[in-house]
Amino acid sequence: MKLSQQQKAYIAGFLDGDGSIYVQLKPNTSYRYKFQIAPMIVFYQSQKENSNLCWLQKTINRGYLRKRNDGIVEYIIGDTNSITELAQNLLPYLRLKQKQAKLLLEVIKRKKNLKTAEEFLALARKIDEFQIINYSKKRKQNSIMVEKILKQKRLLAP
Amino acid sequence: MKLSQQQKAYIAGFLDGDGSIYVQLKPNTSYRYKFQIAPMIVFYQSQKENSNLCWLQKTINRGYLRKRNDGIVEYIIGDTNSITELAQNLLPYLRLKQKQAKLLLEVIKRKKNLKTAEEFLALARKIDEFQIINYSKKRKQNSIMVEKILKQKRLLAP
Repeated sequence: MKLSQQQKAYIAGFLDGDGSIYVQLKPNTSYRYKFQIAPMIVFYQSQKENSNLCWLQKTINRGYLRKRNDGIVEYIIGDTNSITELAQNLLPYLRLKQKQAKLLLEVIKRKKNLKTAEEFLALARKIDEFQIINYSKKRKQNSIMVEKILKQKRLLAP
Repeated sequence: MKLSQQQKAYIAGFLDGDGSIYVQLKPNTSYRYKFQIAPMIVFYQSQKENSNLCWLQKTINRGYLRKRNDGIVEYIIGDTNSITELAQNLLPYLRLKQKQAKLLLEVIKRKKNLKTAEEFLALARKIDEFQIINYSKKRKQNSIMVEKILKQKRLLAP
């Protein structure tokens, strides 16, 4: 990923205006702690004007485009290494979403070094913070669900 | 208006992501040709996160903020000189809305040199182009209304 200063500033502005930085906690029994932690950086555009997303994808050279049924095209960067690289590149230029980018980098770092169910639960609580700083309307405390499942599966003491 | 290259690139990205460039044609009998031509550059943000719009206003040093009833804050630049200056600054950095910025500058230039009702009608037709390039859902051909009124008022031959 080789971005000029000008490209970084433009992409940061575009992400602040019409993008999202968040982490999904998805129930998935095949994972050690029964949840997948999926960090995301997403850009949106209506299908009619998705040339800008094509340019973005070509410039950033990571991630993929996805057409939604409602006519919105999403440009999704979901691979951990790509996200880390992009977030580090944009961090000094972001304004509105700088908090989210910092939190994302912290979650990715802690995710790599997880050793216990207790640490997993603490990370799930950290991920809850996204709901607050993103002013999410369907604000859920996913960590409560995580705690319940980890106890059910005897990964945490009841 | 003194913007660094980095600020111009960021603002262009933000405008491409979440802003609007358009021209309103408002019926107004006090005007010579019975319509006011009002060019606009507008940035949007939810009220909870309007700190970025405050920063933008401070940085661009033009225009004003307006709270809508639905919780959206608009940062509006509507003064012709300010728009011209801003559009010229952002033009090389815009991607999605570069067409709109060029059209805006052309409309402003022609507006200054209007001499006849025929020229006014031709300009109204030019303004119709915004509906197309902005993929406006309520696409109206304002020039048809302009022609009708100019003929009613005997400013144009019927």
